[in-house]
Amino acid sequence: MIDSTTKYGHFDNDNYEYVITSPFTPSPWINYLGNDGFHGLISNTGGGYTFFRDPKFRRLTRYRYNNVPVDTGGRYFYISDGDDAWSLAGRPMDTVLDNYECRHGMGYTRFTSNKNDIEAQATCFVPLHTTAEVYIVSLENKGAVNKQLNLFSFLEWCLWNAEDDATNFQRNLSTGEVEISGSTLFHKTEFRERRNHYAFYHVNRELAGFDTCRDSFLGPYRGMHNPIVVENKQANNSHAHGFAPIASHHLKIDLAPGEKTSLVFVMGYCELDQEDKWASPGVINKVPANELIARFSSTEKAQAALDELKLYWRELLNKCVVKTPDSAFDTSINIWNQYQNMVTFNLSRSASFYESGIGRGMGFRDSNQDTIGFTHMVPEKVRERILDLSATQKADGSAFHQYQPLTKKGNANIGGNFNDDPMWLVLSTCNYIKETGDFSILDELVPFNNDETNSGTHFEHLHRAFNHVVNNLGPHGLPLIGRADWNDCLNLNCFSTDPNESFQTTQRGASDVAESLMIAGQFVLYGEEFAILCEQTGHEELAVTCRKHIDKMREAVDKHGWDGEWFLRAYDAKGNKVGSVENPEGKIFIESQGFCVMAGLGHDNGRAALAMDAVAEHLVTDYGIMLQQPAFSEYDKYLGEISSYPPGYKENAGIFCHNNPWIIISEAMLNNPTRSLDYFSKLCPSYLQDKQALRRSEPYVYSQMVAGADSAMPGQAKNSWLTGTASWSYYAAVQYILGIRPEYEGLRIAPCIPSDWDGIHVKRQFRDAYYDISVVNKAENGINKINVLIDGEELADNIIPYAKYSGRHQVIVTLVS
Amino acid sequence: MIDSTTKYGHFDNDNYEYVITSPFTPSPWINYLGNDGFHGLISNTGGGYTFFRDPKFRRLTRYRYNNVPVDTGGRYFYISDGDDAWSLAGRPMDTVLDNYECRHGMGYTRFTSNKNDIEAQATCFVPLHTTAEVYIVSLENKGAVNKQLNLFSFLEWCLWNAEDDATNFQRNLSTGEVEISGSTLFHKTEFRERRNHYAFYHVNRELAGFDTCRDSFLGPYRGMHNPIVVENKQANNSHAHGFAPIASHHLKIDLAPGEKTSLVFVMGYCELDQEDKWASPGVINKVPANELIARFSSTEKAQAALDELKLYWRELLNKCVVKTPDSAFDTSINIWNQYQNMVTFNLSRSASFYESGIGRGMGFRDSNQDTIGFTHMVPEKVRERILDLSATQKADGSAFHQYQPLTKKGNANIGGNFNDDPMWLVLSTCNYIKETGDFSILDELVPFNNDETNSGTHFEHLHRAFNHVVNNLGPHGLPLIGRADWNDCLNLNCFSTDPNESFQTTQRGASDVAESLMIAGQFVLYGEEFAILCEQTGHEELAVTCRKHIDKMREAVDKHGWDGEWFLRAYDAKGNKVGSVENPEGKIFIESQGFCVMAGLGHDNGRAALAMDAVAEHLVTDYGIMLQQPAFSEYDKYLGEISSYPPGYKENAGIFCHNNPWIIISEAMLNNPTRSLDYFSKLCPSYLQDKQALRRSEPYVYSQMVAGADSAMPGQAKNSWLTGTASWSYYAAVQYILGIRPEYEGLRIAPCIPSDWDGIHVKRQFRDAYYDISVVNKAENGINKINVLIDGEELADNIIPYAKYSGRHQVIVTLVS
Repeated sequence: MIDSTTKYGHFDNDNYEYVITSPFTPSPWINYLGNDGFHGLISNTGGGYTFFRDPKFRRLTRYRYNNVPVDTGGRYFYISDGDDAWSLAGRPMDTVLDNYECRHGMGYTRFTSNKNDIEAQATCFVPLHTTAEVYIVSLENKGAVNKQLNLFSFLEWCLWNAEDDATNFQRNLSTGEVEISGSTLFHKTEFRERRNHYAFYHVNRELAGFDTCRDSFLGPYRGMHNPIVVENKQANNSHAHGFAPIASHHLKIDLAPGEKTSLVFVMGYCELDQEDKWASPGVINKVPANELIARFSSTEKAQAALDELKLYWRELLNKCVVKTPDSAFDTSINIWNQYQNMVTFNLSRSASFYESGIGRGMGFRDSNQDTIGFTHMVPEKVRERILDLSATQKADGSAFHQYQPLTKKGNANIGGNFNDDPMWLVLSTCNYIKETGDFSILDELVPFNNDETNSGTHFEHLHRAFNHVVNNLGPHGLPLIGRADWNDCLNLNCFSTDPNESFQTTQRGASDVAESLMIAGQFVLYGEEFAILCEQTGHEELAVTCRKHIDKMREAVDKHGWDGEWFLRAYDAKGNKVGSVENPEGKIFIESQGFCVMAGLGHDNGRAALAMDAVAEHLVTDYGIMLQQPAFSEYDKYLGEISSYPPGYKENAGIFCHNNPWIIISEAMLNNPTRSLDYFSKLCPSYLQDKQALRRSEPYVYSQMVAGADSAMPGQAKNSWLTGTASWSYYAAVQYILGIRPEYEGLRIAPCIPSDWDGIHVKRQFRDAYYDISVVNKAENGINKINVLIDGEELADNIIPYAKYSGRHQVIVTLVS
Repeated sequence: MIDSTTKYGHFDNDNYEYVITSPFTPSPWINYLGNDGFHGLISNTGGGYTFFRDPKFRRLTRYRYNNVPVDTGGRYFYISDGDDAWSLAGRPMDTVLDNYECRHGMGYTRFTSNKNDIEAQATCFVPLHTTAEVYIVSLENKGAVNKQLNLFSFLEWCLWNAEDDATNFQRNLSTGEVEISGSTLFHKTEFRERRNHYAFYHVNRELAGFDTCRDSFLGPYRGMHNPIVVENKQANNSHAHGFAPIASHHLKIDLAPGEKTSLVFVMGYCELDQEDKWASPGVINKVPANELIARFSSTEKAQAALDELKLYWRELLNKCVVKTPDSAFDTSINIWNQYQNMVTFNLSRSASFYESGIGRGMGFRDSNQDTIGFTHMVPEKVRERILDLSATQKADGSAFHQYQPLTKKGNANIGGNFNDDPMWLVLSTCNYIKETGDFSILDELVPFNNDETNSGTHFEHLHRAFNHVVNNLGPHGLPLIGRADWNDCLNLNCFSTDPNESFQTTQRGASDVAESLMIAGQFVLYGEEFAILCEQTGHEELAVTCRKHIDKMREAVDKHGWDGEWFLRAYDAKGNKVGSVENPEGKIFIESQGFCVMAGLGHDNGRAALAMDAVAEHLVTDYGIMLQQPAFSEYDKYLGEISSYPPGYKENAGIFCHNNPWIIISEAMLNNPTRSLDYFSKLCPSYLQDKQALRRSEPYVYSQMVAGADSAMPGQAKNSWLTGTASWSYYAAVQYILGIRPEYEGLRIAPCIPSDWDGIHVKRQFRDAYYDISVVNKAENGINKINVLIDGEELADNIIPYAKYSGRHQVIVTLVS
């Protein structure tokens, strides 16, 4: 069914853009606008929605997920010319355009289309430090006759609480309220009562009309593909009272041959103090809106804001620039992977075209891991995030699994007992300190469970995280798994037979039996990181104590964690093995292989290499590395959600991309650059441009999951954008394949690149210095020695000591066998 | 904007049908299919969805609320004839039909359309005792040439949990599974795991093809209005794996001139025992589906099931048949009001085109009140419902506000403390016993809070309900309001300033101050009912005790509940008056006027009449009686949600129809038949056929709310179908206007009809007897005496004693001034 040769787009690296050449991509291909709390999701035909900080509680515009037609609803511009009408960005009208192009850039998206000799362009972005989307729209008459055009904007307001908006119609069909003032259409639903915020949609030109009532604009039983107002070429000047408030401007635009005009639309959000809410009874205070509008009152001003945004991104991406013999590698690492890292950092798993924005807050484990690909970009944001996460830790060292972005408080509905959660705080913190040298974060006083009366230093929080594992060991001395570890869907204490129960919040197991080898590896890895941190901060005795626990854990893994050819995955609630050759299905899992080998386990006795060989033999496919094999053909209540998926999908033997970098790192640690890069190239989207049609998802970002060998369509990707794959892949590629790795002492240079790469070039800002690193690969039989020259001077080791350098430096690295 | 003369339909009382003559009704006009747990909502163009018992957890088909285009998604039939194609029921294709008709009947809906000389008909219903929707589809060639038609069915499966289906895409785009077997398309998502139920869609004819994958059927970015398969005239035989499973049959149908063919489609639901789920590994057990299908394997069998359903409804509606000089009155009372009573009884407030089916369980107060218009129809179901409700009562007499239909357990998320809840159990129980004489319900052992270890007789539950009021009195000796009384939106203990908080579940007030006059009236009314019940059951001492409390309450209302011209509504959390002339807004409320007068308060001292005059002066509009006046122009956190609505909508001075019958009854009790009938005629939809365009909602059923005088569009109706208005209106009309009122001793005949009605005729089944009652109205100056002749014999009183009669009897009643 799929024409595998079809391409829908390509990279334009010079402009830091992805160019989409068809409005009919296999699925909507989206971009994110906004970095500072005001966010928009925008598809390649303008679909999507906008929110302020919290996509559940502060949703500005309405969007219908899993809709028919797909991706209907967004910021639309209808152009009508005589009896013809079309959509500027290719949809929702079905009119075929003469030309269509969508360019997703860094924080902006530009549509260009041609029809009836009219070239139309819309550039959509959220300016820096601004709570608004701005659209610069231009229309140019490329023909030989005068054009009298009608331009209609359209967007549909969400009544703020996206969940209530989609469910509580007996209330919300009666609450919608708008105000109209000149060329600005205000949405003020619930402003009368408990909200101190409104939204508006403005254009910097006089209107020929407007509509604020959806039914009036669309007409009875019509869709966004055929609004009656566009057909009639005349707005109805409708005033919404309840039902569905929208905002639509009607503009009459006459263009002589060769003439071009441009307009600026601003869709913004304002918060007001309680006492300043009203200009007069019933009339909202428009001062803040007008101030915001004034900042973009001309095309020039809007263009300047766009240029500023582009410059911001250029500088951000300039902090680490790589050049390898492999352009796909560079495209991902230099542009799109870092861009995606920002998005995952900002949004955790809350709002994508697969995450509906109402189900989840900021995940504890997710958000900690999301920092590792982002810390070098905006470390001050990472500092704040780590402390926010730390504040949701409970006094016993356990963690709320999620917190709410508006309140930053732990989400009691989901609770905790995901026993891998605590130790991720060590990863994020150590990674942050290594990048920045900012040990002061450890001294910050941070409450437990957001209770200001019970605080400790952030260091103490890490200590309690460590102890939470120590205090929660099972019969084999391995960490208890709790509700689940990193694999949410391996629910060993749930035993659910009721389809209305959540696998994640139901717990029946005594919870003192089921153990996780993944957490064991994680504990050895990040426990050792904590011990090192202790040494770095003068807590030598604590380091010794910690190492005793870590050594015990190593012994427990040695004794009870090895299955003969690979690491076990877990012991279930009855003490039976999971991920063993003994099991009829689910014999081998990826997570424990990755985490045990990353932790250094089995490096000395050959088990690590055996485990990696087992991964290669049993789990690797053309499309990435599967989570486990064989897939579960039946539901097993003692394993939980993992066995609920059809074989080959999600955790049931899908390629769950997040964990693939763990194997990439493990292979690099075992000095297998060929395997490491091979796995990376199967995973990284920039390598997969010839698989666009098969994969369906955006070919410029990682997806959470790719269908595995057991599925109906191996290689099909789902759940794009919001996945820990982004930060982990970046971390693996830069710190382990390229080997540019911040440590406490300085920047370590330890590439693990294949022998057919003759060298690499990395420009890296690190603390006060900016290193221009050229690596020459002379190692033909494995890299055994690394010589480092800095500004012509040879270093004793392959670490550039941070204390010695600031400013710009040339580094020449030679890899020798 | 509205053409007020437009009519979209009319009653066909001979066939017990409402005939809709346009697919473009102002809003979708729906019907309900199914009475016994399997339910379908079906609009006048086939839109809507189907579920088994619980619209949240067992949703069969997918429906998108508040969609664009409006009402997209349902059971669709596409007919293609050469290059033309259309939708049998008028939508979702835009093709204009030559003729269209939709007939909503009692539990079935029939569409007839004509296009290209093809007359197509689909009759949709849920047969009695059947977990399936059945569609009898016929096609007739009315032209002179052979027709080679393609017929495509279409429906989209919901992945069972309607909430998860609409939010959790990172999971549910990977879980969809189907099986195809002959002409039956099975939906088996999650059957592998915890579900023991599947759905199927069958047609009794060999297929030319099928589709089970939505994207394949519709084509990229297409909608239900233009599926690619219909355009291509050929199914793709697609097999869904994940994404969106659908069911579409493709049938080739050749028709000679004059030829007619008919098919039977069955969309069904099967539950299996765990051990019988599979025919073989991965293959579901189809035996129960095939058994179900076999019952409707021919048009004749399906037609017989439809006839059986029609007969069932004729007999149900035959239990009470009225004939008055007012045909609108009769249309409502004899057909549509009773039909709506069944629907509200079955569904409480869970699933309509305004209630999304995922937000609410069965309401305690709602469900108790819903029985009063339904008990005479199916008393055994009412008995079960009352006991289910009783079982959710807590030991202290308070009630869970809702219970879940699948488990019948109280909904802890919502909790209780709606202090009017408890006493509604007295109303439903006494009403049930009066209708049936079944005092045994009082002796049933019923658990408290569904805890089988703590039970009491149902009588004891009523006693505790009574005591709950006695134990929760405020500073004036009036009942504490708790979170709210009947008016959910009068939240006197909430004080919310956070828009993310629920008004209903947030409580900050100490809850021992704010008092409700509505509950005071309710307590006097149903407390007295309980006291009478005590006397009826030999609990004379308890009756005396109860009456002491009731008398105290009467005194408290006398002393603290009168505002000078009307009854106060409440005291707020600071002890200030609500619903007083002292208040700048919200001076007079309807609820306390209705309940105090219904309770007999103020009848002796003129206050009742004053209160009713105040209602007439301040609250009555052309479209019904408003909840309060003046509307709240600003939000008041001490009043809560009521002040959050725009003026004129919902509880903020909308016409909240549920409470209008309380005034209708009150006026009848005060012997004001003209006002009583006038108010009824403003409320009852059968009187309002010339206002179809203004009202928008279905003109054959009550709506929860009609916009009030302060709104932008007074008279516009919302939230149709699921409203307590149905049972209360029926109860008011039959028991108070017509005055045919079951009592413990027998059937009281006490009409309160206007002098210009020369008489009425009522046929009423009551216990073992069937009375044919002719009322002759000779009262020209008010009804002061009622003479009753039964079978020619004069009764001493206007009560027909139940013990004396069984079988059929002629009753002649004469009303005299």
